[in-house]
Amino acid sequence: MSEFSSCSPSPSLDLPEAADIFTAAERLTGLVHCTPLIYSSTLNESLGAEIYFKCEHLQKVGAFKARGAANALFSLPPGTTVVATHSSGNHGAALAWAAAQRDLRCTVVMPENAPQAKKNAVAAYGADIVLCAPTLAARASTLTQVVKETGAHEVPPFDDPRIIAGQGTVAQEVIGQCRALGFAPDLLVAPVGGGGLLAGVGLAVSALAPQIKVLGAEPAGADDAHRSFRGGVRVTEQTPHTIADGLRTTLGERNFAVIRETVNDIVTVSEQGIVQALSLLWGRTKQLVEPSAATGLAAVLEHSGRFRGKRVVVVLTGGNMDLAAVANMMTTDN
Amino acid sequence: MSEFSSCSPSPSLDLPEAADIFTAAERLTGLVHCTPLIYSSTLNESLGAEIYFKCEHLQKVGAFKARGAANALFSLPPGTTVVATHSSGNHGAALAWAAAQRDLRCTVVMPENAPQAKKNAVAAYGADIVLCAPTLAARASTLTQVVKETGAHEVPPFDDPRIIAGQGTVAQEVIGQCRALGFAPDLLVAPVGGGGLLAGVGLAVSALAPQIKVLGAEPAGADDAHRSFRGGVRVTEQTPHTIADGLRTTLGERNFAVIRETVNDIVTVSEQGIVQALSLLWGRTKQLVEPSAATGLAAVLEHSGRFRGKRVVVVLTGGNMDLAAVANMMTTDN
Repeated sequence: MSEFSSCSPSPSLDLPEAADIFTAAERLTGLVHCTPLIYSSTLNESLGAEIYFKCEHLQKVGAFKARGAANALFSLPPGTTVVATHSSGNHGAALAWAAAQRDLRCTVVMPENAPQAKKNAVAAYGADIVLCAPTLAARASTLTQVVKETGAHEVPPFDDPRIIAGQGTVAQEVIGQCRALGFAPDLLVAPVGGGGLLAGVGLAVSALAPQIKVLGAEPAGADDAHRSFRGGVRVTEQTPHTIADGLRTTLGERNFAVIRETVNDIVTVSEQGIVQALSLLWGRTKQLVEPSAATGLAAVLEHSGRFRGKRVVVVLTGGNMDLAAVANMMTTDN
Repeated sequence: MSEFSSCSPSPSLDLPEAADIFTAAERLTGLVHCTPLIYSSTLNESLGAEIYFKCEHLQKVGAFKARGAANALFSLPPGTTVVATHSSGNHGAALAWAAAQRDLRCTVVMPENAPQAKKNAVAAYGADIVLCAPTLAARASTLTQVVKETGAHEVPPFDDPRIIAGQGTVAQEVIGQCRALGFAPDLLVAPVGGGGLLAGVGLAVSALAPQIKVLGAEPAGADDAHRSFRGGVRVTEQTPHTIADGLRTTLGERNFAVIRETVNDIVTVSEQGIVQALSLLWGRTKQLVEPSAATGLAAVLEHSGRFRGKRVVVVLTGGNMDLAAVANMMTTDN
């Protein structure tokens, strides 16, 4: 089921600029980790490429989402006391964590069927959880109700200039780290779901090191961003089928507007490719990343011609999952 | 089933000295990684202690064993062309890897029932595998036969001064890394199986920073080192029952001699404690370590009074395991 938006973004759209990323990077200093770049000699030999992994699964709250959430909350004007969002994934935990850093009250609307681990994480950071039916409509209406009752400031998960700018600090950091190691990468690969990370990365690279190609990696079973990019019009509805649970969301409007201007291409990967990449990451790098985070390496495996002989940075986006679900996935798929 | 050796080690025992560790550290420069120290704020808050993990699962071949094997092979006199050992675990892969670094031929005697992943690792480093029946007697007699036929130099997995000195470089590195971070740890915790790592760590610490307490951590289901240490005589036989497959071996003679002089205590941990520690390591640090590697954190969990308010370095010994076995363990035990 697909539906197309108009060809051009609304002229009034508040898009982030590269300078917003530099401001975000200053704002985030001391709040988030500068995560390491790692590599595996064995993996590189077998792939015929030089792959560096940017370890955002080692970020605060175990995902790059901490950057956007903290950038949004630490740029709020004084006087804000309550924030809210709806989330079944890492954004809820990231907002709860960021709110605790700024002594704000936080409410996260979560679907009843959200994994217990995600609920526990949000609660552990001190946020209030309001459960709702597991539909997007119920999530939106429940959040509207929460905002009405509490006067909370709403922070969306990706379609927001502060979020995009925050996630863009990943790329600014990568460029600096590579420079310190004495090289510039040929390619930078980031998974794409709602497009907060990919838009931020594209924007940062186009301003700081435009010779680096930026590639989005998306599961074929949730390929709205790929179709939007190739078709030139944003696909706004899809029925996703992928184990990469963080990438089931649909590309945001602002995200699409930035991505089409700053990203070189978006490629799709198979479910089998994601599981193979996940096994390689666990086995070779010993990093317990979540399925969504394996999508970038899956792109290197399934589109190897684009990467052979190249220096590539792949963003590992997060490491949060139910271990039982993971165990089940490995026994089912391998 | 237990059997006791005589009270004192043989007077002719060739024991390593602290200087051998310093020599090993120079020899290993550029061959093995200086692995990172990592920590989790969330974990530290919940434990009421400052725990740093020494990441030897990120070492070459995915285990600290690379250090001892490389130290042994790179200290061999010129003219040696063939080396051999028997192993069902990380030592075989480590020796195969080290032999490849020095262009030596290597044969590893492995029990038929060794995990396919271990066999693959040994083969991938270019060593010859000779399979034998899954008993210690068959392993020893097969190795004797291999040595007789090929003239190979035999490298034991732990009861060897070169191996102990090589593993001791872990502690020398830790002390230097902590100093660079501006502190000295109160305690250093290492798992104990055959005792190569614990003896090396004890020796290094007693020479370089004797104020640091060194603690061995051992599964209660394979507690020969604990009983040897407490009783003052080496227990040479046991029937181990533990998921920590790297710690099922019995303490070596040289290892016991060094450990009783340089280590402060050896504590035991339950199987439940090991699984709990493994879950915490996977969940909090996102590091895919093997069960043996979780034994140190299990000691912190089950003997918390010894660690509260302290700065502690825990060695994560390795990260090699069959993912399917891991999956099975998580679904069975949690």
